[in-house]
Amino acid sequence: MKAAYIVGTDTDVGKTFICAGLCWALKEKGYNIGYFKPVLSGAKRRGKMLIPQDTEFVVNFAKIEGDIYRLTPFIFEKPASPHIAASDENIDINVYQIKQTFEDLSQNYEFVVIEGCGGLAVPLKEEKNQFYMQYQLIKEICNNVILVTTTKLGTINHTLLTVEFAKAYGLCLKGIIVNMYKNEPDEDKVINTIAKFTNIPILAKVDFINDFPSDVDENKFKNVFKKCFDDRAIMKIMGVFEC
Amino acid sequence: MKAAYIVGTDTDVGKTFICAGLCWALKEKGYNIGYFKPVLSGAKRRGKMLIPQDTEFVVNFAKIEGDIYRLTPFIFEKPASPHIAASDENIDINVYQIKQTFEDLSQNYEFVVIEGCGGLAVPLKEEKNQFYMQYQLIKEICNNVILVTTTKLGTINHTLLTVEFAKAYGLCLKGIIVNMYKNEPDEDKVINTIAKFTNIPILAKVDFINDFPSDVDENKFKNVFKKCFDDRAIMKIMGVFEC
Repeated sequence: MKAAYIVGTDTDVGKTFICAGLCWALKEKGYNIGYFKPVLSGAKRRGKMLIPQDTEFVVNFAKIEGDIYRLTPFIFEKPASPHIAASDENIDINVYQIKQTFEDLSQNYEFVVIEGCGGLAVPLKEEKNQFYMQYQLIKEICNNVILVTTTKLGTINHTLLTVEFAKAYGLCLKGIIVNMYKNEPDEDKVINTIAKFTNIPILAKVDFINDFPSDVDENKFKNVFKKCFDDRAIMKIMGVFEC
Repeated sequence: MKAAYIVGTDTDVGKTFICAGLCWALKEKGYNIGYFKPVLSGAKRRGKMLIPQDTEFVVNFAKIEGDIYRLTPFIFEKPASPHIAASDENIDINVYQIKQTFEDLSQNYEFVVIEGCGGLAVPLKEEKNQFYMQYQLIKEICNNVILVTTTKLGTINHTLLTVEFAKAYGLCLKGIIVNMYKNEPDEDKVINTIAKFTNIPILAKVDFINDFPSDVDENKFKNVFKKCFDDRAIMKIMGVFEC
């Protein structure tokens, strides 16, 4: 079973955009790719339906098979930490169900891209004053982590904090993808600092697209992904999936 | 020597606002308070002068003695990580000078509020491929840390990452101040989650003021500080300073 669990240094670093790009680029290379986003909070309402918009975007963009409600079994309307949204909406996050769904997906696809919910230290549920954290789910289903970050002010701190947390909790953080890259000199200084301090490979630098997700110009996205997930990046990324 | 080193879970969580409030509230209680912000990037230019606007705000608001250029010896115009701004502006951050200045301040005041630059894992300087990090300066001058956070989405992750980093690097994180508090139910769930997970005391919850720093209404600020840094909060905060 080959998969990678994608988390972010913060909310809104573009995990969904990167997952869509990864799935699309790997499919373009002929790989048989699955996608899984077990938990999503801040879902959009369309009439009576609650739409897991991240899942919908990735499935449509990268032409991934699968029913969005199976690929995202736990959907909450409130844009809050999952453990708060779940308790407010009286939904119990069934970890066994998540594991089962992932197990099934792993049988059907060569590689599965798993999109997390925020960062490593996000509480997924709270039961009898005990938290079940995203990093625990990672260790139980796929301890093969790719971290999405950006180059904005504060990113070095958040990236180094995340890397240290991963070390402290036995998580295998295999690579970093820098999103929203504007190809400016200072950005490379930030990226070099992160690479030097962490010794974790920078897998790809993905160009900034200023109108995502409001204006989805698929061709523009595909050109960015073609450029940024080139053969060299794909090779590094496959190295992460392979182990 | 009694002091506390104030860091944030992110940029723009309001460290300066909180430091100003702390200095003012403690002075109102009759304490002899000093303030020190050794490094500042993103300074404002006023004519030919580069103004450390955080230091200027705290000194003016809380009527702190001292020349702003002595209280902030290392000032950079570029709003970037200090090690990048320093190398770009050809200024060497002299750690010995920081220590000396802090030593002097400690002799003259009962308590010194030290404002950090961003979070714990911020590189202050880079020399021969080695980084000197903010957490190292903290351990060398004042290993007595107060963390400023907010309740916005992503805060739980950043707060827990910071707390774990502090543990891993031997930092004494004594208390958390929640800033930009809107007294909404979900915020208390976030705060309770942080308190339960970290076992670190919540020292105060400071009300959100939407027009800081653009519109400085000192009386409005003082009312917030009077309310939020009440006797109970001050007692907890003094407990942090005392150790």
